[in-house]
Order: sequence, then structure tokens, then C-alpha cells
Amino acid sequence: MVSVTSDPANPASVTVDRAIGLDDLPLRPDLRGQKPYGAPQMPVPVALNVNENTHPVPDEVADDIADAVARVLRDVNRYPDREFTELRQGFADYLGHGLAPEQIWAGNGSNEVLQHVLQAFGGPGRTAFGFAPTYSMYSLIARGVGSEWIAGTRGPGFAIDADDAARQVADARPDIVFLCSPNNPTGTPLSLDVIEAVYDATDGIVIVDEAYWEFAPREEQSALTLLEGRPRLAVSRTMSKAFAFAGARVGYLAADPAFIDALRLVRLPYHLSALTQAAATAALRHADTMLHTVEEIVEQRNRMSATLEALGYTVYPSWTNFVLFGGVADPARTWELLRERGILVRDIGIPGHLRVTAGTEEETTAFLEALAEIGN
Amino acid sequence: MVSVTSDPANPASVTVDRAIGLDDLPLRPDLRGQKPYGAPQMPVPVALNVNENTHPVPDEVADDIADAVARVLRDVNRYPDREFTELRQGFADYLGHGLAPEQIWAGNGSNEVLQHVLQAFGGPGRTAFGFAPTYSMYSLIARGVGSEWIAGTRGPGFAIDADDAARQVADARPDIVFLCSPNNPTGTPLSLDVIEAVYDATDGIVIVDEAYWEFAPREEQSALTLLEGRPRLAVSRTMSKAFAFAGARVGYLAADPAFIDALRLVRLPYHLSALTQAAATAALRHADTMLHTVEEIVEQRNRMSATLEALGYTVYPSWTNFVLFGGVADPARTWELLRERGILVRDIGIPGHLRVTAGTEEETTAFLEALAEIGN
Repeated sequence: MVSVTSDPANPASVTVDRAIGLDDLPLRPDLRGQKPYGAPQMPVPVALNVNENTHPVPDEVADDIADAVARVLRDVNRYPDREFTELRQGFADYLGHGLAPEQIWAGNGSNEVLQHVLQAFGGPGRTAFGFAPTYSMYSLIARGVGSEWIAGTRGPGFAIDADDAARQVADARPDIVFLCSPNNPTGTPLSLDVIEAVYDATDGIVIVDEAYWEFAPREEQSALTLLEGRPRLAVSRTMSKAFAFAGARVGYLAADPAFIDALRLVRLPYHLSALTQAAATAALRHADTMLHTVEEIVEQRNRMSATLEALGYTVYPSWTNFVLFGGVADPARTWELLRERGILVRDIGIPGHLRVTAGTEEETTAFLEALAEIGN
Repeated sequence: MVSVTSDPANPASVTVDRAIGLDDLPLRPDLRGQKPYGAPQMPVPVALNVNENTHPVPDEVADDIADAVARVLRDVNRYPDREFTELRQGFADYLGHGLAPEQIWAGNGSNEVLQHVLQAFGGPGRTAFGFAPTYSMYSLIARGVGSEWIAGTRGPGFAIDADDAARQVADARPDIVFLCSPNNPTGTPLSLDVIEAVYDATDGIVIVDEAYWEFAPREEQSALTLLEGRPRLAVSRTMSKAFAFAGARVGYLAADPAFIDALRLVRLPYHLSALTQAAATAALRHADTMLHTVEEIVEQRNRMSATLEALGYTVYPSWTNFVLFGGVADPARTWELLRERGILVRDIGIPGHLRVTAGTEEETTAFLEALAEIGN
């Protein structure tokens, strides 16, 4: 048995004498030398590193969700509804655009939804494509199912041009194309003509990830408007951001009913717990209240962008709840100096750049003042 | 857009005109023609088909779990603890045997835990092995990650002999061996010498699935006693059965810390929601109460076995919460006649056999009386 010692300064940290290492186990060859994905999790006063909604769920909504969960606990000895019927209806109602529950899928976070898509339409010997830099989980999930990842390129300011995008996709002939709209980690908007052009340039699946869509300008059109007549197109969303529900792990997707049937073939049975289904369904009933913070976050994001620009940084247009800024002389040093001041931002690996989430007014002020003090 | 019509007799049933079928989509070739896994979900008075614990969680425990969930809803805007530290401690404490939290892993149901094992140590070009008939998800999950499934054979009464098992495994040279202990869908006990022999016969991973372990005789030794010095061995469990927690979707596993590190490489980040972590941690605090129903279920299982035998059926020894019985002339007919009487059992595809879950005293009586009435 391993021997265990605790660090008295940090009771949560337990050190185990490890006689065996990863190299002693018959690990899949392509995993050798890899590190687990994930931003550092550390308690700080101002966490602006993982694009959470920093506003807690309002008390009256949290109470209603708690009641809904308490009710399903009475039957928690039974397996949950494998088809999460009520939740799919809730998502169809929320998304609108005449969507039916048969066109909805959901998972434990949009990562799981994307994994289902890759399991159904990707897998060994197939390829997945995205325009770098983009959400880093795409390539990780693709490789996880045995698909090759192909990185396309973006134009100036991380923008994507329709003709160029179509050409790149036609050349690469991928089985699955990821379009992140707006893009993470750059915040960049994506116009609908890019989606149309990419769809026409491929016989494969096109998945538009609208995780941050609710932070885009209200008058803009979602890719949901393109679903009709495009059975290979899917639009994914998450409750983690606008709905302030990152801890509940709920992502979802809209597509043709046949597309949803394909995902049924690869999902683990009962993948969504009764608690998750009840909590998400209850939260959706309060969509108006839950989305109330979006306007305040957009306001703080715009203030952040304007102030960063005034401080001399290069700021990229953002339709999300975060801002990418360039012109940072030493991102690792700035990251550390901010952390010392109790503020976490994200070094996303683009040289000279950092990414910061728009927080509450106080959090945003704390970040901007600290950055101004640190200088460049 | 699809056109949607509702069946007025059944408002939950919505029919969508489907212009597109699965064959019109670029589905992975090996998924073509497959059907989604899952037993029929239909509301009946006596559901004894999916080996649930038919006893609800006691009210005082459900209340405590609801309180725990209500508390985490205050921070649900934040991502959950990716390392589910408190829950891993809870499982280590529950399992005993000197296990440390570093040796624990968990997922949304033991299916997800098994999928992590297959993603880390299986995958394309590798093979997984189990002694048929066994839990049907093993082969489905194996194929889902691109591994080939190899079915070994059992001896009389579905038992496994150590020498024979070691020989089969040595011949097949699989990367992963599944040992279901006790076995689903047959209920068959597995002795520790089989696990030792199989471990010594392979350089691959050996996973002992103890989903039903709590229903085994108290004096028997779990495979947890074999973990020390066997870094390629893992023992999986679930809260779905003994803990009456099927709706919460919580499975877990114990193994060497390096084995756990390997699973970290393939898990989706934040795969366990804050709600799941809180609910499971709270339930574990009430382990004694939660497990109280186990004795009653074992009593009903034994009564079921004895009565089925008295009715002339072939009954197999069971260390689980269900009974497999043979000598059924027409399983499909018996299944249907039971269903007409409001009782669901499982036709698990073994000719002449049916599987039935031990229910409460009333449910068990209802099943036995109905079966006696139907005759063979």
C-alpha cells in the first residue's frame, strides 16, 4: 500500500510515495508524455481566468433549482430519463427558431457534446479541422477519439474570411470542421457567410460552437438560422457562461433529428443525471433572470476593452465575456504580478498576449487598476 | 424546418417529419446499422428490469443531500473542483483497506469510469477481453474507443475457473481484461484466485467491476485486497445499486496513483459537476443508512431464488441484487405476460432465460405470484 503523509501547512495536500510511474503502465502510445488539460485552480479574490460568469445565480433562482433537485432525490434510486425529454423541450423553447425537442442534444458540459459529435462522425482514421488559435479542447477531444487534428489559419486580427476559409477546408477535406462563434480565446466574431461557405466546401460535419453567443450584439443572427436544409450543420451552446452555470456542467446542441440520432449511438446510457436534468430545466424556466447579468457583463467587457486600449495595449473586438489583449512585453511576468495582487488572468500561449474575463464592476476595476499599476 | 405534430393521446410523443436519415450523414462506418443501447423505459408499477435499488433514499438522507446541493448552487457560476478532492476522500474512507484519495477516480456512472480506462489503456488497434455472457456495456464502450472486443468463455453455470481463465487470457493477449465480480447478468461470484491468475497471465490492465459487491456475503474478500503490488489492477464500483443512487450517476474506481494519473489524461476537464460531487459526498456520509436496505434486498433475492427453484426453474447462485433463471420456455412471451401485469423484467438474450431484480418485499411477491400464475 502507498504510504501517505500530509503537509501540515496544507491539509488538503497529501503526498503519496509513488513506486510506480505512468511509464510503468501500458498507456496508449500517443498519451505518453502528455499533461492533463486544465487551468490552475487556486483560490484568489478576483478569478478572471476561465471565462466564468462571475455573478452568482440569483437567490430566488437558486432556491427554485434546489427545490427541483430535492424533488428528484425522492426517485434517485431509479435511473434518469435517458432521453432527458423535459430538458430537451426546455432547450428548444429557449433557443426558439421553431426548433423541436427532436433537434436537441445535451451533455455534461459542451465538451461532452462535442465529444459525442467526434465519436459519431470522427474517430480513428478521420480528421477534424479548426482555425487556430481556437478553443484548445477541440484538438484534445479530436485526438482523444483517434482523429487527426488539422489547424487552419486566420487572417489579420484573428478574423476569418469566407473565401479563404472555404478554400482551406476544401484543401484539407476534413470530416469535421469546428467554427467557434465568437471565437475563444480571441473573442472574434464570425459572420454567417463564413459558415455558409465552409458548409458548401465540405461533405463533412460543420459544428458552430456558440458557447459565448449570448454576449454578442442582440441584433446579430445566430447560426441557428442556418440549420434548415443543412443536415450536416450543428450549433452548440453551453449554460456555463451566460447562465452562470459552469458548476452544473450543461452543454447542448441543435441539429437535424437524424444528427441527434447519430449522437444516441455513442452516448453512454443515462449520461445526464436526474439532478443535472432537474437543475438545468429549472434554470431554463428563469432564463430572463439568469440572462440579466449578460448586459452588465457586456458593459464591463466594453469598459475593459476601452481602458486596455487607453493603456496602450492592442485590443481585439470581442463578442464574448472576455477580452484578448496584445502588446504585453512579458505575459508570464504580468500574469505573476497580477496573481500576487489576487487577480487571475489567462496566459493562453499567444506570444505577447493575455486573456481576461469581464467580471463584476468591482472585479473589472480591480484588474484594470492592478494592470495600470504594474505597467508594461 | 421539420414539421412537428403531437399525438393527442400521448402529449410526450412528438412526431417529426424526417426528410433526412442516418444514412444521409457521414456517420463513422462501424456505427452504421447500430441501435442505441438501453432497456425500454416505461412506467410500470413493478420495475425489476435494470437492477435498480427499488428502495428510495431515506427522507433524512435525501434532505441532507438536498441541503448540500443547495449550498453549492451559491457558487454554481464557478467551475467545479476538477480534482473532486472531497469526494475522493469520501470514497477512500468508505472503501477502507488503507486506500488514499490519490488512488480514487470517479465519473458520471461507472460506465464513464470504464470509458476513461479504455481511452487511457485501450483505443484504436488495442483489444479488450471479457468472459461472456457479461455486462454488455464492456464491448460497446470498447468498440466506441476503437478497440476490438474479444469474448472469452465461461464454464458450467457461468462460473470461471482460474486455470482456464489464465489460459484464455494468455492466448488472447488483450490490452484490457474485464472481470465482473459478481457477474452481470448472471449473478455469478468470482473467486480472488481467478483475478490473481488472470493478472499474472497478462501484461495489460485488469479491471474488476464490483458494481454489485455490497450484495455479496459479508465475510467475502473484495478485489480491493489485491491492489497492493498490482499497479495494472483496478477495482470499479458504483453508487447506483447499494447506495440507491442510479439517478445521480456516480461510479468510481480504486487503483495505483499512477493508474489514476493516466485517467486524468483522458477525462474531459470538470467532468463531475459541483452538484454531483456535493450529492455523492453527502450520501457517503450516510453510508450506514444508505446500505441498510442491502440486507433486506439480499433477503428478497434469496426468497426469489428459492421460490423460482420451487417453481421448477433453473436458478443460478447470485451475489447481486438480481437473479438469473433458466428453463423459461418462451422468454419473450413470459416477458410480455409479466409486462401486461405491470411487472418489468429483463430479457438479456440468453436463450431460455430471464433476469429479474430483487425488489421490496411487495414487489418481489408481485413478481413471484404473477410468474406462478403465468406458468411456463
